[in-house]
Amino acid sequence: MDTSPKTARSAVRRIPQNARYDRATIDAILDEGLICHVGFVAGGLPYVIPTSYARAGDRLYIHGSAASRMAGALASGVDVCVSVTLLDGLVLARSAFNHSMNYRSVVIFGKAAPVEEEAEKVEALRLFSEHIMPGRWRELRDPKPIELKATLVLSLPIVEASAKVRSGPPEDDEDDMSQPVWAGVLPLALRKGELDPDSSGIAPPHYLLADARW
Amino acid sequence: MDTSPKTARSAVRRIPQNARYDRATIDAILDEGLICHVGFVAGGLPYVIPTSYARAGDRLYIHGSAASRMAGALASGVDVCVSVTLLDGLVLARSAFNHSMNYRSVVIFGKAAPVEEEAEKVEALRLFSEHIMPGRWRELRDPKPIELKATLVLSLPIVEASAKVRSGPPEDDEDDMSQPVWAGVLPLALRKGELDPDSSGIAPPHYLLADARW
Repeated sequence: MDTSPKTARSAVRRIPQNARYDRATIDAILDEGLICHVGFVAGGLPYVIPTSYARAGDRLYIHGSAASRMAGALASGVDVCVSVTLLDGLVLARSAFNHSMNYRSVVIFGKAAPVEEEAEKVEALRLFSEHIMPGRWRELRDPKPIELKATLVLSLPIVEASAKVRSGPPEDDEDDMSQPVWAGVLPLALRKGELDPDSSGIAPPHYLLADARW
Repeated sequence: MDTSPKTARSAVRRIPQNARYDRATIDAILDEGLICHVGFVAGGLPYVIPTSYARAGDRLYIHGSAASRMAGALASGVDVCVSVTLLDGLVLARSAFNHSMNYRSVVIFGKAAPVEEEAEKVEALRLFSEHIMPGRWRELRDPKPIELKATLVLSLPIVEASAKVRSGPPEDDEDDMSQPVWAGVLPLALRKGELDPDSSGIAPPHYLLADARW
């Protein structure tokens, strides 16, 4: 599917000119993010839980302990709303009112279902690993049956979804253009620090040193 | 209040040894973050919306257009769940199962109320500005009445709240310690890039150049 259908839920209402419904934009944001915020209703009340995820085509896999509140609620087939947000910068305008942030975000609505089939579950775990650190999975031992049992993998179709993207300079009112204040963008991005090795004496692998994402 | 009461909602169930209920930890995470994810229920369905915020003592101010879906829902006094998550690193363990992330997160539960009183609203706008860019507010012109009217500020008490913190090296199973794979932490943090000035010719202010946060 190249474009997500705009529904009453997924249609962006606020600043609709920043909305994107094409799957290329949605997928690129999902593939760059590392953490999603999962919203669900339990006992009539909202919960928002940060967790890791991975995408496989039209599916978003969410990952949790089989013992967690989120996993229990989601596995029962309730509606969920998953949000992924990438912060790209602070937009410093000539008035407080026009201050903004540059960001790319995705919101997905739908019902998650637990992945029961073992081969799909192992493949989802491989995708989680490759999403976070491409190249690492093949170095790791296979998951043990007890580990598979302790891990709940939920699958959410990426159908009812929208992205919102703000980029570029501040948009000031014409009246404010002569305000005597610096205006512009302070870009922000996730960056890696120095590797902090555990006591194994093994050299850092190529995929870790070569990783150009951060 | 020094400690948030543990309630059925706010008690951390999963890996409870990583839970923190002291306000110093909760406030430090809120003060460092720039974006929160606001969860609420509308028409029985969950929504999760990223937005900016600021803290003032025991209150979290959330910020939105008066025309937004979130603002409309929240102003009616529904329950909300606000989550702030700071990603500190990728924890690369000796098994896929023990991979993790280092992070600091806060979840707040409660009911938000719109800030009606003009002086409190302007003070909240000042706090939003100072939260994002300390020192900037005094350079900016005062908000106009039409801008105040277009901005909805919601106030959420920080009472039912909890933090969750994971830090440090991977925690591997004893059996896996001889696995022939590099293990350790790849630290991640938000960092600033090169300032991208708008066409004003005004020199960047001291508070922007001196900002050591990123």
